[in-house]
Amino acid sequence: MRYVARNRPFIVRQGADHFPARQNWNAKYLQEVMRDQTVNVAITPHGNADSIVRLPDGEGMLFVKPYETEMPFSTVLQHIQDNERRSKSTLSPTTTDNAKAETTPKAEEGESRKLVYYAQTQNDNLRSEYASLFSDIPSSIRFASIALDAEPEAINFWLGSSLSITAFHKDNYENIYVQILGQKHFVLLPPVEGVCVNERAVLGATYAPVGREQREKGQDGTGEDVELEVEELHLQIDTPQTYTPFPTHDPSLPSSSTSISHHHYNPTLFSSLSQPIKVTLEEGDMLYLPALWYHKVSQSCNDEGLCCAVNYWYDLDFGGGFWSTAGFVRGIGIMSLGDKGED
Amino acid sequence: MRYVARNRPFIVRQGADHFPARQNWNAKYLQEVMRDQTVNVAITPHGNADSIVRLPDGEGMLFVKPYETEMPFSTVLQHIQDNERRSKSTLSPTTTDNAKAETTPKAEEGESRKLVYYAQTQNDNLRSEYASLFSDIPSSIRFASIALDAEPEAINFWLGSSLSITAFHKDNYENIYVQILGQKHFVLLPPVEGVCVNERAVLGATYAPVGREQREKGQDGTGEDVELEVEELHLQIDTPQTYTPFPTHDPSLPSSSTSISHHHYNPTLFSSLSQPIKVTLEEGDMLYLPALWYHKVSQSCNDEGLCCAVNYWYDLDFGGGFWSTAGFVRGIGIMSLGDKGED
Ligand SMILES: O=C(O)CCC(=O)C(=O)O
Ligand SMILES: O=C(O)CCC(=O)C(=O)O
Repeated sequence: MRYVARNRPFIVRQGADHFPARQNWNAKYLQEVMRDQTVNVAITPHGNADSIVRLPDGEGMLFVKPYETEMPFSTVLQHIQDNERRSKSTLSPTTTDNAKAETTPKAEEGESRKLVYYAQTQNDNLRSEYASLFSDIPSSIRFASIALDAEPEAINFWLGSSLSITAFHKDNYENIYVQILGQKHFVLLPPVEGVCVNERAVLGATYAPVGREQREKGQDGTGEDVELEVEELHLQIDTPQTYTPFPTHDPSLPSSSTSISHHHYNPTLFSSLSQPIKVTLEEGDMLYLPALWYHKVSQSCNDEGLCCAVNYWYDLDFGGGFWSTAGFVRGIGIMSLGDKGED
Repeated sequence: MRYVARNRPFIVRQGADHFPARQNWNAKYLQEVMRDQTVNVAITPHGNADSIVRLPDGEGMLFVKPYETEMPFSTVLQHIQDNERRSKSTLSPTTTDNAKAETTPKAEEGESRKLVYYAQTQNDNLRSEYASLFSDIPSSIRFASIALDAEPEAINFWLGSSLSITAFHKDNYENIYVQILGQKHFVLLPPVEGVCVNERAVLGATYAPVGREQREKGQDGTGEDVELEVEELHLQIDTPQTYTPFPTHDPSLPSSSTSISHHHYNPTLFSSLSQPIKVTLEEGDMLYLPALWYHKVSQSCNDEGLCCAVNYWYDLDFGGGFWSTAGFVRGIGIMSLGDKGED
């Protein structure tokens, strides 16, 4: 409760060691339990779901969303493991360190045009499409329910590879994030650093498949599953046009970095004052990620080529001054920049 | 803890009924316990300790502090009871209602030039000059210590009459305020209403006695006590000159009020949006007054002509974003007014 009151993060190391998921989950078990159940998957060319893409020749930026489709869980699992194998084979050992992982989506470095898969529905999927796995985690976390005076609004399952990076963003939720397999590397910024990430209303676009979409029978012969063979994605600007406020600068990258990705652009007057907190969640660790904190998340896989986590989202407390004050501070920050944030 | 986290006030009605002070304290008991001990007392012409005084002919404002002096407790007690008797005799019954009490210090209406006495040291006096009364109240309040994660920084004793009004101000403390004798009428504004009270840096002045100061023997013949006969006070501008940021407008007064006191002046663009909360503490009630809330306090006496309270001040939590954010919001509010707040 004191941490919630202060809107400050903390980690309970090994806090989730007692979750049955910690003992049970591995590639074989997930495959057996989920079998040929259809699940949603986010597909992107570079592991860049919900991120900013800079258009060539100063044509501006797009806020891009992944191509979302349904396929049997076993297919998603295979794609993710393939992704991880590819990431290992196309990268020299020295480039697997964090700093490099954070500068450039790895897929850009390889020759392969294979797409990146991430099961990341974020719609309470552990109580819907992944319900068969739900009994392996607690339906409620006692300390969080007391501190937040609420039960979880959404409980989510995340399965991906080290090719996927979740770009800096913030959520209107209190978050308990639990690592099950592999590691997640969080970079955290408090809400007051909104002025450092240069939030801008950015035109929305979504990845869509190029060429044929092909229906095939499910492998078990039931014929009920749909498998899409997606080979290439291109960006389509959403219609009607929508603008989403989203961080356009990543202040956690060293400004001296030689690898200039789009994230290096667009600093504000205040970006260099940012003080990013970097933490790695090991298997069984629990992170309290307070509402409105900006977070960027990258992943490392376990021996089976999987990175798997669950998280619990809780309504934030709108009853005090926090929500309105944080919004006011952010708004004043944006106003104070005028157009000076644009490069 | 939830209220502290939200910076929201609450009252525990009869929450202090178990304090021995509730049974023990009355004029006779206080007199017996404190006997001829010397205490600090604040003396003002109008019951206006720490308040804004408007100079005639648009000469501006002063932030005035009371004349503070030491005298035997029994003398202070008598002065306060005298004050209350005077307040009763010079006011018609209909003017004793709250609304009227809040518009004009009552002393201005009477013919008497007698001064107003208020024991209000606010320097942890219950553990120093009023230590003999300290055993009548708990030295710590359990729910507050848990919620605020602290022990009291200061515990104060307040003894006054209905002639004294504490003007709108804020404190850098969490406050548990406990009514023992009579009633206190609080008007509360949240920190975000800083923009309504028009805080300005106001030149400081202090009341000082006019004419002779006369030493007399203590009435019990010990000769150790000092009694000052103060007959008239005048304002002296402090040297060196100091400017104190202080609310210069009272948004809780109806703007239609016919009795124009200095508090009606100086509204800001936002003053009319203020939503004051008015609460009366009855004997035995406990108020949690959160840090940085503006509060104005007036008093009603019991049958013995006394209004007596104790309060516990706790350090506020500087560990989260509250302190800095509240300061930022207040500062932006002041900036946004420019000089438009001045009348
Ligand atoms: O695990 C991820 O990739 C992102 C997690 C996230 O953004 C969240 O839990 O809010
Ligand atoms: O009781 C009063 O007159 C004022 C109380 C006050 O300002 C406080 O407790 O902070």
